Amino acid sequence: MTTLEDYLEKNADRIDKVIHRYFGDVHGDLFRASAHLLLAGGKRLRPAVVILAADAVRRGSSDDLIPAALALELTHNFTLIHDDIMDGDVVRRGVPTVHVVWDEPTAILAGDVLYAKAFEFICLSDAGDAAKVRATKMLARTCTEICDGQSMDMAFEKRSDVSELEYLEMVSKKTGVLYGASAAIGGILAGATPVQADALYQFGVNSGVAFQIQDDLIDLFANTEKSGKDRASDIREGKQTLIAIKAREKGLDLAPYRRDLTGAEIDDLIARLEDAGVIDAVRATAVERATVAKEALSILPQSEEKRLLAEIVDYFINRSF
Amino acid sequence: MTTLEDYLEKNADRIDKVIHRYFGDVHGDLFRASAHLLLAGGKRLRPAVVILAADAVRRGSSDDLIPAALALELTHNFTLIHDDIMDGDVVRRGVPTVHVVWDEPTAILAGDVLYAKAFEFICLSDAGDAAKVRATKMLARTCTEICDGQSMDMAFEKRSDVSELEYLEMVSKKTGVLYGASAAIGGILAGATPVQADALYQFGVNSGVAFQIQDDLIDLFANTEKSGKDRASDIREGKQTLIAIKAREKGLDLAPYRRDLTGAEIDDLIARLEDAGVIDAVRATAVERATVAKEALSILPQSEEKRLLAEIVDYFINRSF
Repeated sequence: MTTLEDYLEKNADRIDKVIHRYFGDVHGDLFRASAHLLLAGGKRLRPAVVILAADAVRRGSSDDLIPAALALELTHNFTLIHDDIMDGDVVRRGVPTVHVVWDEPTAILAGDVLYAKAFEFICLSDAGDAAKVRATKMLARTCTEICDGQSMDMAFEKRSDVSELEYLEMVSKKTGVLYGASAAIGGILAGATPVQADALYQFGVNSGVAFQIQDDLIDLFANTEKSGKDRASDIREGKQTLIAIKAREKGLDLAPYRRDLTGAEIDDLIARLEDAGVIDAVRATAVERATVAKEALSILPQSEEKRLLAEIVDYFINRSF
Repeated sequence: MTTLEDYLEKNADRIDKVIHRYFGDVHGDLFRASAHLLLAGGKRLRPAVVILAADAVRRGSSDDLIPAALALELTHNFTLIHDDIMDGDVVRRGVPTVHVVWDEPTAILAGDVLYAKAFEFICLSDAGDAAKVRATKMLARTCTEICDGQSMDMAFEKRSDVSELEYLEMVSKKTGVLYGASAAIGGILAGATPVQADALYQFGVNSGVAFQIQDDLIDLFANTEKSGKDRASDIREGKQTLIAIKAREKGLDLAPYRRDLTGAEIDDLIARLEDAGVIDAVRATAVERATVAKEALSILPQSEEKRLLAEIVDYFINRSF
């Protein structure tokens, strides 16, 4: 029985190899800029979901779907390059971001190149044309929603009254739908029925939301060295995360913490959030979404791949970086 | 017999109607920003090429291809929104550009939304799945090339030794391939054979190059009110257009003109360029490309639509704004 850790490692190796084949030796500033983040590594979770979903639908070799798996990673990377420009982020995956190494115009174009390649790679998979058209439509709609999610996220920065419902819609679009598309596209290209594809989509979207809620918790708790992020940066920046929203619901105002915080102050804040039941409530929401995700898998036959998909969701809400 | 002028007007009306149906009443800043340039009008030349190419391959109603025709217009608009950010342009089609009305992050996302919609609309056409996959692949490859063309164009701004070959590659990518894709995708969705699709692609690419060379001439000669552009702006900015390249070949250095110029100075420069044979040489290149474009159509049966396609190319190199 393969452990999830082994599976993800093997999968990342396989995807990395393909990435190096296509992007390892490209010429010209633009294509090097496109390849920059891709070559900086990553867990390749979306490709893993594509392939596991395909194999959960029809057992057998999934080599024919590697281009589609890569397409979802390319989509993810295109959004990261553009988001980093918008958010002014200077480091990602331990390397300077594209607009820092090159410049903003090159970064806009580098993202645009990966965007095109994503659609090209979907069509390069070895699946029927009807399935490719369904997959292309789904990827296109997903990209529109991701843009909407990023737009909502930026708009939330100017507000302090974001509701839980609004937050969940934003993370569903910004993070959830791409996992939804990963699972559904894997399924569709492997011959899933519409009902199976829809279940896989629901699995993915809910997994992605759970993933993002866990990200909010990691920001507060994580060991800075492991996560590569500054502890409590969301709270210091006044971000409307589920933690901030649940705190407000429970009468705890985080606005006074929108400033530089010492480690002791963060520890004190965590204690207050725990006492008020905020952390438990946030965790419960993540667990709830993870449960919905796993339940969506119930219409698929038992298989090793189905088990690994369920384990991925558990990993999403249990990881500490 | 329909005149080209009538045809283009009718086509623009038809495309405008569809644009208004899909983008006229959208909600939220992001989607309004996506619709902004689209709703500001335009000649809808690429949609016209899509539909004429389809009808030149198989006669009959082309209503089924309106979504694909729109897809090519969306692609064009996405590149304009992103290019305007990169080039710092503040007015387009008589309205302030997207990043000026909103901001750069919104403009990046607005372009990204149209990008996704382009692929979605290709798949919404009423054609066979195999044709849609071919069209999707072609659109994806075209987008990569357009990015490369824009990247070359920006890199050329830092150089004064761009060769004619480099210039032609740049405009082929920046402007030509989208006309190539328009013609080929129209053909493909209408059931063109690979040979027909390739001929249509060649028709489009060469038409687009001729179009761009004429644009360079318009910048120098045009009535500012009609073109909406400052006269001789390319020369004042030291752009490496075919005019600048041919002038250099003939020993005429345009570098001293890289500054504010009076109308009299521009007239004097035009006289010098004409005397040196630069203008004739540039026009000859445009005519040559237009001829190659029209010759590519020879494998298609005679039809009104084929005649109109040939007339579009003549219009491209004869228009004065």
